[in-house]
Amino acid sequence: MQLRRPSTDLHQTFEDVTALLEHHRTLEALAHSQDRSQRGVGVLLQQRQNAAELQRRLRGFHPADLGFVLEGLEPDDRLQIWAAIEPRQAAEAIVEIDASVRAWLIGETPKHRLLKIAEALDPDDLAWISDDLPEDVMREVRESLGEIDRTLLQQADAYPPQSVGRLMSLEVATVREAQTMAEVLRDLQARSELPDHLDRLFVVDARNLLRGALSLQSLVVANPASTVNAVMEDAPLAFQPTDMAAKAARAFERYDLVSLPVVNDRGKLVGRLTVDAVVDFIRVTADKDALAMAGLRGAEDTFAPVWQSARNRSLWLFVNLMTAFAATRFIGFFESTIQGLVSLATLMPIVASIGGNTGNQTVALVIRGIAFEQLTEDTRRHLLRKEMVVGLVNGLIWGGLAGITAGLFYGRLALGAVMMAAIILNLMIAAAVGVLVPFALHGMGRDPAQGSSVLLTFVTDSMGFFLFLGLAWLYL
Amino acid sequence: MQLRRPSTDLHQTFEDVTALLEHHRTLEALAHSQDRSQRGVGVLLQQRQNAAELQRRLRGFHPADLGFVLEGLEPDDRLQIWAAIEPRQAAEAIVEIDASVRAWLIGETPKHRLLKIAEALDPDDLAWISDDLPEDVMREVRESLGEIDRTLLQQADAYPPQSVGRLMSLEVATVREAQTMAEVLRDLQARSELPDHLDRLFVVDARNLLRGALSLQSLVVANPASTVNAVMEDAPLAFQPTDMAAKAARAFERYDLVSLPVVNDRGKLVGRLTVDAVVDFIRVTADKDALAMAGLRGAEDTFAPVWQSARNRSLWLFVNLMTAFAATRFIGFFESTIQGLVSLATLMPIVASIGGNTGNQTVALVIRGIAFEQLTEDTRRHLLRKEMVVGLVNGLIWGGLAGITAGLFYGRLALGAVMMAAIILNLMIAAAVGVLVPFALHGMGRDPAQGSSVLLTFVTDSMGFFLFLGLAWLYL
Repeated sequence: MQLRRPSTDLHQTFEDVTALLEHHRTLEALAHSQDRSQRGVGVLLQQRQNAAELQRRLRGFHPADLGFVLEGLEPDDRLQIWAAIEPRQAAEAIVEIDASVRAWLIGETPKHRLLKIAEALDPDDLAWISDDLPEDVMREVRESLGEIDRTLLQQADAYPPQSVGRLMSLEVATVREAQTMAEVLRDLQARSELPDHLDRLFVVDARNLLRGALSLQSLVVANPASTVNAVMEDAPLAFQPTDMAAKAARAFERYDLVSLPVVNDRGKLVGRLTVDAVVDFIRVTADKDALAMAGLRGAEDTFAPVWQSARNRSLWLFVNLMTAFAATRFIGFFESTIQGLVSLATLMPIVASIGGNTGNQTVALVIRGIAFEQLTEDTRRHLLRKEMVVGLVNGLIWGGLAGITAGLFYGRLALGAVMMAAIILNLMIAAAVGVLVPFALHGMGRDPAQGSSVLLTFVTDSMGFFLFLGLAWLYL
Repeated sequence: MQLRRPSTDLHQTFEDVTALLEHHRTLEALAHSQDRSQRGVGVLLQQRQNAAELQRRLRGFHPADLGFVLEGLEPDDRLQIWAAIEPRQAAEAIVEIDASVRAWLIGETPKHRLLKIAEALDPDDLAWISDDLPEDVMREVRESLGEIDRTLLQQADAYPPQSVGRLMSLEVATVREAQTMAEVLRDLQARSELPDHLDRLFVVDARNLLRGALSLQSLVVANPASTVNAVMEDAPLAFQPTDMAAKAARAFERYDLVSLPVVNDRGKLVGRLTVDAVVDFIRVTADKDALAMAGLRGAEDTFAPVWQSARNRSLWLFVNLMTAFAATRFIGFFESTIQGLVSLATLMPIVASIGGNTGNQTVALVIRGIAFEQLTEDTRRHLLRKEMVVGLVNGLIWGGLAGITAGLFYGRLALGAVMMAAIILNLMIAAAVGVLVPFALHGMGRDPAQGSSVLLTFVTDSMGFFLFLGLAWLYL
């Protein structure tokens, strides 16, 4: 029987695990109820049996699926399952779990178990979650590691976050140019297993300089007598550990890769980047960006305490409150104008709101262009001009419609004309700010997905109020 | 020399191509300037040579890189490069290009060239872009296809969009259970090439029922005398063509897969889903969601005509205008209250704005939970309760701060108290709507990323105005 079967239906897996937990609890309750006749030992024995049975059944689940289920369980159930999983399986599950839930789980796990779990991790997985582990646990784990693994862990830790070095795996399989296919096959057959995602063997010379790559596909179709040199791909695309992971991820997409060699600045092979790490990276990055655009610092554990969630969202709300107070100061200047014509108060949020919407459309396109590295200096100028024209066109259409509607509604066409003019101007400002702000943030080395929108909305709100009320003060 | 080298530096590639174009244009200008002495034939000959030279040099670029460069070039340059690429290379490039630019390129390409390009496409790539090709071109291409490819194309077209069937490749390599490793290797060596991303051979019986999978890794390390049956992975995870691609993509992430067998409802092997298609799918989906959240129907060609861009954004702006008019009707009801206390007009946008911000944070978390299939019925109820408590806590903190500030600023503490109460209530409403709207849209079979935010903002604006002005009318 094959254990750890992957599942096509996660809902089913979730229900299977909760049913298992239910069953386990019934057994426990039963043990306690039978306790009355023969106290003590029997119950303990029964409990130990129950725990072993739960652990045995959980072994049948894939660690990644257990990670998924753990994220969705409420704290009590989560802890019970977590405690029942074997350390080796727990190690595989914990790297799959979202950081917010992982931190909580680590905080709830006794140190001796945490040590066992950490020791079951590969050096690259250990490096991946090392920031979440308590310092004393990491110290003990480092000491317990073999010398090679310790060096590897230090290296991985030394690369900057979001770099290829952090994502790469250190397991490589290498061959020499002069070997024949038959020799390579024989060498491989002598090994009991190969690294995961091995689609290519890397060809290195005696100094470990990368010379080429030999795909398993060419290995199996080539004439057994041909040499590696004749079959291999020369000078394959390679990245350095200090390259940004996003750059490597785009190369995987464009060239449909499964693995890439990673070389140091002297061209020596130091590791291998595989598509599974890249897929996780793409997903995590997209996820983080989507949350950042809504003003969240990261994903939240659904079952985290309220104060923790409130804190995760507070920075953004504070910033929003400040900018809203600042933007509405523009209304404050014109309170006497509003007093004279109170319908201005009703209409002004429309001018602000449509400006924010247009600007955010521009922001989304520019952030995408920056992420795809597709905006050169020339394109940027072109884009700025074009977006302002699009703003003008949309301003004429929608500002016109809004102005006419408002003018007719309040029976005062001049009011409609002022509204139309304010919308046109605000849409053009929104377009300009929408192009310039993401570039400015990117130029300052910041992630434009974070902050662009709040800055933009501040400008479009302020200008919406100022332009509309200012024009009304002048002309009405 | 190896042609079509992939590149680690796309900016460099971009500059290389534009430099090439510059060089080509200089040569063309030179041919024309030498024209004065010996008219006609010489120029024509020289031009033909120049064109051949440009084509030869472009052949050195990877099609995916050319696709990238084409997206970033302005229309004139874009067309000149596009026309110079060989049909086979153009076919490989066009599948990599974003849909907005692809549609434009197809519109600008003469029919006879389009036919050549379409004929150079694999059936699965052809199915991928078939919706963008003119109907008459597709008809001719279908006729020119062999019978097998035609059937394959029809099948791929028949599956719903976003399904595994649309993404899968039809090239599979199969073996039988009774074969030995040596036999399998000999069979493979008899083939000149294997399908891309072949990490596993699929084991089928005489009726083409999927029995297992044999990885190339186990093939090369196993004893040559062992049978497939003894080495293969039994009953590998498989999807059906009608399954949603998003579900399969999550399986690739969780289980770190390179390829998956696709079987029909009777368990017969019909295709193969590979990680390159999944990576593209993940990226395109994330990209589309990010744009949809900002109210764009899709990516835009930076160089598209203004009216086309204006149209892409218009639907959203129209909806925004409608909801803004509707929300401000709540202000309209209270115009006399504002007339009595004009500072209400200044403060009311703050109440609306902070509600929108809180609600959008909740929306982002819920959309993520829905996309990850992690929100069960129980979790949903828990989340609704929790978000409302978080709203209450944040309302007390930030509403309190805002109320005190406003009360002191206007020297009227009752005004501050009304503002605080309105913010608390609006934040709790925002939390509830932020949870319920994405679920409602998802339940109606719609993408919650599209529309959740506009509905939410409508509610938080309306309620912000209504609660603040209504409470002011009652108590001030």
